[in-house]
Parts: sequence; C-alpha cells; structure tokens
Amino acid sequence: MYQTLPGTLHEANEELKKVSYKRIATEEAFCPPEMLNIYREMLDKKLLNDPGFNTMFGFYLGSDSLRAKQIRDYLTDLGELRISHMDQRGIDMQVIGLTSPGVQVMPAPQATSFAAYANDVLSDACRKHPTRFAGLAAVAPQDANAAAKELERSVTKLGLKGAIIHSHTFGEYLDDPKFWPLLEAAEALDAPIYLHPQVPPPAMIGPFLDAGLDGAIYGFGVETGLHLLRLITTGVFDRFPKLTFVVGHLGEALPFWMYRLDYMHRAGVVAKRYERMQPIQGKVSDYLRRNVYVTTSGFAWEPAIKLCQEVLGVERVLYAMDYPYQHDVAEVIATDDLDISDEVKKMLFQTNAETVFKL
Amino acid sequence: MYQTLPGTLHEANEELKKVSYKRIATEEAFCPPEMLNIYREMLDKKLLNDPGFNTMFGFYLGSDSLRAKQIRDYLTDLGELRISHMDQRGIDMQVIGLTSPGVQVMPAPQATSFAAYANDVLSDACRKHPTRFAGLAAVAPQDANAAAKELERSVTKLGLKGAIIHSHTFGEYLDDPKFWPLLEAAEALDAPIYLHPQVPPPAMIGPFLDAGLDGAIYGFGVETGLHLLRLITTGVFDRFPKLTFVVGHLGEALPFWMYRLDYMHRAGVVAKRYERMQPIQGKVSDYLRRNVYVTTSGFAWEPAIKLCQEVLGVERVLYAMDYPYQHDVAEVIATDDLDISDEVKKMLFQTNAETVFKL
Repeated sequence: MYQTLPGTLHEANEELKKVSYKRIATEEAFCPPEMLNIYREMLDKKLLNDPGFNTMFGFYLGSDSLRAKQIRDYLTDLGELRISHMDQRGIDMQVIGLTSPGVQVMPAPQATSFAAYANDVLSDACRKHPTRFAGLAAVAPQDANAAAKELERSVTKLGLKGAIIHSHTFGEYLDDPKFWPLLEAAEALDAPIYLHPQVPPPAMIGPFLDAGLDGAIYGFGVETGLHLLRLITTGVFDRFPKLTFVVGHLGEALPFWMYRLDYMHRAGVVAKRYERMQPIQGKVSDYLRRNVYVTTSGFAWEPAIKLCQEVLGVERVLYAMDYPYQHDVAEVIATDDLDISDEVKKMLFQTNAETVFKL
Repeated sequence: MYQTLPGTLHEANEELKKVSYKRIATEEAFCPPEMLNIYREMLDKKLLNDPGFNTMFGFYLGSDSLRAKQIRDYLTDLGELRISHMDQRGIDMQVIGLTSPGVQVMPAPQATSFAAYANDVLSDACRKHPTRFAGLAAVAPQDANAAAKELERSVTKLGLKGAIIHSHTFGEYLDDPKFWPLLEAAEALDAPIYLHPQVPPPAMIGPFLDAGLDGAIYGFGVETGLHLLRLITTGVFDRFPKLTFVVGHLGEALPFWMYRLDYMHRAGVVAKRYERMQPIQGKVSDYLRRNVYVTTSGFAWEPAIKLCQEVLGVERVLYAMDYPYQHDVAEVIATDDLDISDEVKKMLFQTNAETVFKL
C-alpha cells in the first residue's frame, strides 16, 4: 500500500507488487539542517561567485513553492519521515549521501570539518536503522590529504560504504594530481566513489544557465559525464586500476556515447593534438566496463536501462531513486515491470548494490 | 572492391556486400579552398577570441600530420577524388554541407557573401554529378534576413535541399528571436535545417578544452545537444510547428536522455524557477519525434542506433558517414550488418533521406 505524495509528478494507477528482491536505492540524499544555514549565509553575503549554485539554492532556500519546501523537509530528515516514504514506495534500503554540492563550495577548513560532522550524523542514523540505511562519506577534495583521512575514518570507524563527490570542486576535477591522495585512499580502502552531479562551473555554465538548462534536465549530466570522461582519458584509472566509480543517471549517457568515445579518443591520441590526450592502456569503453558502475537514478525507462545493461554488462547497473528529488511510486512500478529476467532484476535492485557497497 | 585509405582507423576484414538499397550519406562535408585561407588569416592575425576555433584550425591548418593533410585535401574536392572515395566505400550519394564552423565565425557581411559563394560552388558540383551529390546551403545567421534570402535562393534557384547550421554563432543560439527570420524562411520553404556541431563557445568550453575534450569526442555533441534542447524548451517549435531539424551523431544523445528530459522539463516548468522555462505545448519527446530527424554519423553501432529507432521511430533515423572526418569501410559494413529488417535498413540508408531532403 502506498500513498501518492503531494508534488509527485507521476500518478500511479497500480499498486506496488510484492517482489522477491530487496529494492535498494543507491543515490539518495540528505543534509544536516546546518548545511542549509551555511548555504543561506553564503547566498545572503554573496560569498560565492558561482551562478549555478546561486540559482539552485536561491530557489531551494528562497522559494515557498511546494517542491522547495518538501525538498528542505525531506533532505534534513534521517528518521521516521524518510522511512515512511521508503515504505510507501517499497524501498527496503537507501544508500544515502550528503546532497549536492555538499561541502565542495565551502572554504577548505570549513569543508573538512563539516564533512566530518555530516559523516557522524549519517553514520549515527545508519547505526540506528541498520536494515534501512547505509551511507556514503562526505569528503572535502579542497584538502585532499584531510579528505583521505576522513574517508578512512568513515569506512573503518563509522561503517560508511564509500564516498560521494559532487563533480567539480571550484571548477577543478579529480584528474588533477592534487586530488590524488583521496583517490589513492579510496583505492586502498576498496571504497567506491559515487560521482554525483552538481551544476556546471562558471567556465562552462553560460549557455546552459541562460536557458534554464543548467540543472537536472541537462547541465548536471553533461558536467558529470565530462568529469568521468576526463578521469578516463587522462589516465587516472591506469594510475589507480582498482578504483571504482559509481555514476548516476545511467552513467550520464556515456554508455550511449561509448562507440564514438572509443573512436574519437583513438583519433585524438593519433593526432597528437592535445598535451592531455596521451595514449592510455585501454579503450574508453574498457574503463567504463571495468571501473564504473551506473545507477538508474532519474531513469525509470526501459530503452536506456537495457542499453546500459547490454553494453556495460548486467552486473554494472544498479537501481537508484534519487530521493527526495524524484521519488514517484510509478517509477518504482515501471522499474519492477522491466522486460528483463527475474535474475537480472534481482541484480539490478539488490545484489549489485550489495556487491558494490558491501552491504 | 575497396581500398583502405591511409588514416582509416578501422580495418575491414570483409568486402562490401552488394545491397538492395542505395547508401545515401547525409552529413558529408566540403569547403572551398578559399575558406581555409580565410581561416588561416583569422588565425595568423588572431582575429577571433575563440579558443575552440583556434585549437581546431590551429591543428587542421597547421599540422603536417597525415590526418590534417588528408582533411584539407578531401574537404576541398568536389570531383573525382571524392567520388572515388565514395565508390570505395559503397556510398551512392552524399548530402554535402559546408564544413564546420562554416561562415559562422566571420563578420556578418563577409559571412553572407561567402555563404553565397560556397552555395554556388556546391550547387555547380551537384549539377555536374546529380546522381552522386546533393547539397545543403550555407547560411550566415549573423544577418538573419540575408540568410533567409540566401536560403530561398539556394532552395528555389540552386536546387539545394535545405540548410546546414553549425550550432552557435558567436555564442548565440537559434532560439534568440533575432534569428527567427531564418527559421521562418526554412519553415515556409519546407527546407530542413541540419544542426551540425561546432566547438563549444568561450562561455562553455573551459573544462572541455583543458582536457582536450572540446571536439568530436564530447564537446561537439554536448554543444549541439544543448542547442537542440534550447530550441525545444524555449518554444521555437511551437512558434514554427512545421520546422524540421536534422541532427547528427544520433541526435547528440538526446534520444537516450529523453525520459529524463521529459521528467525534468515538467518539474522545471512546475517550479517556475526560470523565466525561460515556460510551459510549451508538448513534452520534449514530442518535439524530438515530430520535428527532428537524427543521423548515424560517427555511430556505426547497433545498440545506440536501435535505441533511436525504438524511441523516435524507424522513419526518423538516417544514415550518415561524416566524410572526410570519418569514412571507414568497416563502419559501412557494420551498418549494412545491423540486425534490423531489410525494410528498415532501406529506410535507414535510402528512403528516409529521400523523404527528408526531397532527393
């Protein structure tokens, strides 16, 4: 039994089915209320010269629309409200991370310290609800050595299952060697990094923003797809071959682009046109299949899910909901009803997540 | 019989088959040698503050690599060399357009006048080889009224089949009403517009360029996908409902994103967050299925082609090669060998192009 929440876009005409798998949703968001206060102060004092952040949190913090209010209420809850929504939607377990852009817009010392606080809060909730919640650690790439230590603490002491990183940090990407201590720690801990979207940085956002396309409709995906592609083409996975990334929104469309990425990467290396386009050990697609898992967040849609399963392998695609930004029961039903075998469905909803996040 | 050209990335181990359809390649490029001279002068005199253009033509005009030399030679030929390559690759007909970025980087008067010259050159070649070449008109959006007149001349007097526009013009997009006289003319003439990539504009290129990902590997697709999405979400197709766009590289991945585009567009309209995200008559996917055709340029790859056929309709997907940038016989063979019915294969290679371009 479920109730359709106000603000839900898709109305379901059917009931959720009893299913033989656990539904584990792997890209679910929270934040401590204090983070919204920090963001509010950043907005009020115009501390951040980042038009993407300013429009997004100008909306979520300033709007009295139903959607903005719900997002604020749902994000900050790690208890009964969240669990009741999970029950209504048939979600057995959430893998939860600090919402975008997390600490990555704060000055380094504040970011490092707030990440630790958020990880304490999240791991407390996970210990309180061990069958319902698992968590990913917030880290502050601004201070990569501190982030490496915080990731180690989070995984070994707090029981968190990996890290979540919201794409660029002040316009810089994880292929920059200054961030490598964090990647080295993730590899050593065998801790996956969820590469989650944030709005494109100022050097990229221009024509997205002026048409209102900088967010989840398109800009998020492009920014995050670009980030993942940079990690591959600059050789980060040759340097850290056991590093695992999880990427939402079906890999931000890179699985669809895979053939062209391989072709044009090879052409680019042969042409020697760019200093940062050097030979790497494999094809782009090899890294997508070896170092990357993708989730279905935002995509309750058979054609795209099946393409990813076909080109990456069924063990590489995980279910996600994207609570509280997108949590329609109709989408759960659509994913339950995918025309794939029961075995693959269980991998999608349950066992792949158990493997990747060691649940 | 074919020969593998030097510079070809894929070696074919098989011969081209005799097939029961014409292979019509719909995104093929040329330029008059004078355009390369104009570009060379723009580079030498640093006339253009456009890092994407400067790196691309710095390479193609400055490099003595085999690829750069071939591109220069092949682009400028509209006679026997091109036809011999078509024969070697089994291409019956090319639909040819001025190569990217065409006149869209020139000052308006020069752009308008050079577009007319290029259209004269191209239509001459088409008249000389009417069974092998068809052409798309170059237009200069910088002067939209002149561009509308040139499109009319090209279609009614020169026999060209539509227009080709290389995405942004000095960082501006066709949803800006100043460009609408051109769109109005295209609709009135029932002339399709091929929306072809160019490098992202300065306001967007930052993190693409610094990793060498601004070109065909990723930046092209993102820039052009963004452009198409802007046309849809700003209501251009409500204003010009019979306007037809053709978009290469399998719609620059928008067919893969379709579900999420619909969902997040609706969420964006409901949220009233952006002035430029107003209600439109249909869903994003409705316009993709009604006003857009996609071509397989750069994508000799069954999973992505079949997804587009499934979600757009088999009548919406056309074959393209992308000569002289990509012209491997192995890719023609792979497309011949797609696991689709003979009827759909003929639509893909031949009859859809005949319909869209009135061949």
